[in-house]
Amino acid sequence: MAYIDLGLDEHQYPGVRGLLSYRSDTGLLLSGLAEALLRGPSTLDTGERELIAAYVSSRNECVFCCSAHTAIAAVQIDGGSHLVDAAVRDPATAPVSAKLRALLAIAAAVQRSGRHVTAELVTAARDVGASDREIHDTVLIAAMFCLFNRYVDGLGTKTPTDPASYLAAAENIAAHGYLPEQARGAAMHR
Amino acid sequence: MAYIDLGLDEHQYPGVRGLLSYRSDTGLLLSGLAEALLRGPSTLDTGERELIAAYVSSRNECVFCCSAHTAIAAVQIDGGSHLVDAAVRDPATAPVSAKLRALLAIAAAVQRSGRHVTAELVTAARDVGASDREIHDTVLIAAMFCLFNRYVDGLGTKTPTDPASYLAAAENIAAHGYLPEQARGAAMHR
Repeated sequence: MAYIDLGLDEHQYPGVRGLLSYRSDTGLLLSGLAEALLRGPSTLDTGERELIAAYVSSRNECVFCCSAHTAIAAVQIDGGSHLVDAAVRDPATAPVSAKLRALLAIAAAVQRSGRHVTAELVTAARDVGASDREIHDTVLIAAMFCLFNRYVDGLGTKTPTDPASYLAAAENIAAHGYLPEQARGAAMHR
Repeated sequence: MAYIDLGLDEHQYPGVRGLLSYRSDTGLLLSGLAEALLRGPSTLDTGERELIAAYVSSRNECVFCCSAHTAIAAVQIDGGSHLVDAAVRDPATAPVSAKLRALLAIAAAVQRSGRHVTAELVTAARDVGASDREIHDTVLIAAMFCLFNRYVDGLGTKTPTDPASYLAAAENIAAHGYLPEQARGAAMHR
């Protein structure tokens, strides 16, 4: 159970979900950030963006976020869990596009430190078709999961071990997104 | 200059400022997060929270964020820059309260990885008077700067070298906060 009393049933609200409820003002901003970056208008597919999230979470060894976003990516990407698992394990050998591979290399650098991103990595991504906006969003998605992974593990939240619970949550996110029900349709992307 | 074309004068909008303008939907959410966590209602002083931000940024070697939040903390904490510099250098020997020292130890663990936060570190903070909410907010502030530091350095943004520019920005933040002018007074803390 979490290091602090979240005031709720962690079986019902595992991982980040309990944290977003515990402090709902920051919770709504963080949900809005996930919605904008992972599901908002983009030339990157939602599945590709979720794969970046899963990959960074794997490198941060955050079991909850990696399990969650692996499942969310798998239900939204051609190739499903087979592709996602292969890409999280090793983007260099996985059957992903050259552009996604180059963006995952930038994400891996961000996971270590912003200082590990080099002009060479950015140029390599641009050379295989990545736009400035895609490079920007990749850096910010990777940085956002360096936040989420630390938030979830730094407060010792509950990590379900049952794959079915991640799949059910993934299908719900794919259908309804990250915003709490009462905030959907509100102008989050001002 | 930044790795991507931000479409603005980076001398006027250095570091994170250019990024928050470049993608204004996520920029507003990130500004709202900083405002809520660093300046919203809390039993921790604004200066103490800014010190946590500066300390994490120092450990991430993010010169822009460390310079900015060191200056912002210094104008809002008893002891000024002398105290802030000492605490950022080594909280163990700086003349800060036992509670702030214990929270900085948690922040240092978060900076490495959420998995480095232990029940012992949390208990030690609680034993010197930290509340669950203060522990939560410390973890989330530290995690947030692991995002900001990676965002700023991962896109290679401009880092001013003139201390006067950080001082001027610090006085502006202390007076007006993190939200862009048109968003102040809006219900960001729903």
